[in-house]
Amino acid sequence: MDEHMDGAASAQTLVLDHVPMRNEEGEIRHEFVEEIAHAIEAADSAALRACVAELHEADLGDLIAALAPDDRVRLVELTGTDFDFSALNEVDETVRDEILDELPPETVAEGVRELESDDAVELLETLDEEEQEEILEKLPLQERVALERSLLYPENSAGRRMQTEFIAVPQDFTVGQAIDYMRDTPDLPERFYEIYVVDKEQHWQGAVSLDVLLRARRPVALAELTDEDRRRVSVLEDQEEVARMFGKYNLVAAPVLDTQDRLVGVITVDDVVDVIEEEADEDLKALGGVNSDEELSDTFLTIARARFNWLLINLATAFLASSVLGLFEGQLEQMVALAVLAPIVASQGGNAATQTMTVAVRALATRELGSSNAWRVVIREALVGLINGLAFAVITGIAAVVWFKIPGLGVVIGLAIIVNLVAGALGGILIPMALERVRADPAVASGTFVTTVTDVVGFFSFLGIATLWFGLK
Amino acid sequence: MDEHMDGAASAQTLVLDHVPMRNEEGEIRHEFVEEIAHAIEAADSAALRACVAELHEADLGDLIAALAPDDRVRLVELTGTDFDFSALNEVDETVRDEILDELPPETVAEGVRELESDDAVELLETLDEEEQEEILEKLPLQERVALERSLLYPENSAGRRMQTEFIAVPQDFTVGQAIDYMRDTPDLPERFYEIYVVDKEQHWQGAVSLDVLLRARRPVALAELTDEDRRRVSVLEDQEEVARMFGKYNLVAAPVLDTQDRLVGVITVDDVVDVIEEEADEDLKALGGVNSDEELSDTFLTIARARFNWLLINLATAFLASSVLGLFEGQLEQMVALAVLAPIVASQGGNAATQTMTVAVRALATRELGSSNAWRVVIREALVGLINGLAFAVITGIAAVVWFKIPGLGVVIGLAIIVNLVAGALGGILIPMALERVRADPAVASGTFVTTVTDVVGFFSFLGIATLWFGLK
Repeated sequence: MDEHMDGAASAQTLVLDHVPMRNEEGEIRHEFVEEIAHAIEAADSAALRACVAELHEADLGDLIAALAPDDRVRLVELTGTDFDFSALNEVDETVRDEILDELPPETVAEGVRELESDDAVELLETLDEEEQEEILEKLPLQERVALERSLLYPENSAGRRMQTEFIAVPQDFTVGQAIDYMRDTPDLPERFYEIYVVDKEQHWQGAVSLDVLLRARRPVALAELTDEDRRRVSVLEDQEEVARMFGKYNLVAAPVLDTQDRLVGVITVDDVVDVIEEEADEDLKALGGVNSDEELSDTFLTIARARFNWLLINLATAFLASSVLGLFEGQLEQMVALAVLAPIVASQGGNAATQTMTVAVRALATRELGSSNAWRVVIREALVGLINGLAFAVITGIAAVVWFKIPGLGVVIGLAIIVNLVAGALGGILIPMALERVRADPAVASGTFVTTVTDVVGFFSFLGIATLWFGLK
Repeated sequence: MDEHMDGAASAQTLVLDHVPMRNEEGEIRHEFVEEIAHAIEAADSAALRACVAELHEADLGDLIAALAPDDRVRLVELTGTDFDFSALNEVDETVRDEILDELPPETVAEGVRELESDDAVELLETLDEEEQEEILEKLPLQERVALERSLLYPENSAGRRMQTEFIAVPQDFTVGQAIDYMRDTPDLPERFYEIYVVDKEQHWQGAVSLDVLLRARRPVALAELTDEDRRRVSVLEDQEEVARMFGKYNLVAAPVLDTQDRLVGVITVDDVVDVIEEEADEDLKALGGVNSDEELSDTFLTIARARFNWLLINLATAFLASSVLGLFEGQLEQMVALAVLAPIVASQGGNAATQTMTVAVRALATRELGSSNAWRVVIREALVGLINGLAFAVITGIAAVVWFKIPGLGVVIGLAIIVNLVAGALGGILIPMALERVRADPAVASGTFVTTVTDVVGFFSFLGIATLWFGLK
């Protein structure tokens, strides 16, 4: 395909078949981005329109992310109505906000109009209220009211994630009538997997999956096919709960009901997949001491500032742990081997505790760990700490004696290891459980508390036992 | 509801409406489990059959997990054909294997026959070959061959995850013919979201979503509605790639093609959601030093043994770091403040490095970090390390001077902090990238390497600089 790469951009070389967007690893090809950048420079609107029209929104998002900041806005402007604004939901928030800031509100409003309601809400919700207002007031009244209503629901609620386009039919329809309705209605939702049966006041009565509908003959009453027990979602439900329900019961869509059980929207599995990935991302970052909204496109100053706070907390706990060492200054001077070995006791406890904590945080997030099995798991973790404590007491003890040729040192470090691994195991399970109990996020705060426990207990037990054993002062 | 709780189990009290399975938090109710346990003891087969028939497979799985080990097998035996074996895919592998071991192969084979092919494969794949064989040979030839073929595909491949039940129609069908075919075929897949068009040799030609089918009138040729560009999956593709594709392009189903582009199965989004959760689970556990197959139902001995290996590696690196301290024994004796402060330098570097590593591991897993932006991210992380290094050099320096009243100590620890935070940042990003390059899992091994770097660099720089600054020996 290299023969197409040898000149300026023209409409021909932009056709995706000639310069494929991605290489074999699925990474976006540098040459492809260059071609687009050339076309933007040349203001080759026709070529760009042809290109973006062909791309899936996810690919278009990747392309935008790969372009230089100025080119991103120019691309949207040059492709006009061919630009699918849902692609902006696929890029980092920082990039999205930059683009939306630069574009005239009319252009954004025009783009928002073309979106399904859930995509429109997703695009608008990260903007501040003033910017939202500016765009919303350019929309036709009906669409504006619908979006404003969705934006009133709490962040991360089902009401925010749902789309308000769905198919609802009366209870007395037959299969044939339902099919005819779909054939005759021009603006059906873009994609749908089930239809809903409602009464005259829009109260939800049940769901009929499309495959069920297609198996039945036309005269069959819809009531016969309706699943009234289908799982449904309250508009105020947290998206994490919704995601858990989808995962557990293998759903592709769920009706969203208001507090009066009226059907107001539908959540589809593609939104749920995003939620699951977001939540996994948040837990992982939280355990690593990183803010969940940190993005790869952030500047180093933004990131340094965001990570500073966590490091500051860590510094405080590190000083706390070192102050325990400070209590034993005299002993450290008398026997420097203690200073050399103390970090081993702390580190071994910290790692064992992190193992326990990781399992606990994950099990709490997936609801595998609850009041019914809490005590069994706590006892189990304590036993694991004890057994590995015994094992590493022996190993570390022998190593310490071989190294420093002080026989008692093996006993001292061995005992300290046992104490610290049991303390770490208990801290690793009880701290996340306590945080969950007081409705704090165990993933965010557990790490600091847990390693503080193992540092303090590790230093104190090792040096305390050494003081007693060797009669130091 | 407590009035139902006062006696032996009877068919009435088992009806779910009387003793709901879950409390308001969605946890399984202790009373419900008790009722079931009583019914099992009383061998009240009718009541149990009525109960399990009403439960979703996921709920049945939770119930099994909550029962005592002996009761689990008894429940399966007492409910016979009413027991849905897909519930066994919802419980921990340890529990599943225990139950399958206890049941006669005939019973298992009977249960497997009722499952969709992907559920059957999932159930069988964790058994050892001998046990698989025992069950497979009790199945009718056709089903046996189909399952054996699926089990030949590599673990975690699309071929393992796909179901082999799907709807394929010829190219020259009309909408009406397709609908009639579905109405007239008795054993359609349990659930489906799209149908596929194939040629006479079963080569895949395209997909038609059910909603598209339902919008069109009967005489329309299916060819007009067929999406030939629909994303498809090779049978050998890794499930992680498949999950990424589903997430990116918002799919609910994807056709699975063999190496000759013949349609052999379909992967649906519910399987993909499981894969996404599994992968998130694995990454999180790997970063916490826990084996990915550790389960909440494992015994403490199994867990202690599994976690031992990771702790042993950690012990080795802890001794390595302490050996650096050992090099400076003389200096530590001369100035005990160094022994007290050294862990702070190591800890601050370790935490900064963990932040970088967490972001890097996650970005590698989601493919956000690739060769196109690698250098930008490396430079950014180094700058973040430098800036936070400078900030914490000042803070730690002042704190050290205030504590120990030795002016030079502030400069020494400040310089060491800067060195260690930059080293940590570089280690945190370069080590995961290098592991990814050599096709190792960055999530599993990065942590040890990274904290070894910051421990060794932290101790060495702090004590080295102190030696030079204070002229110690």
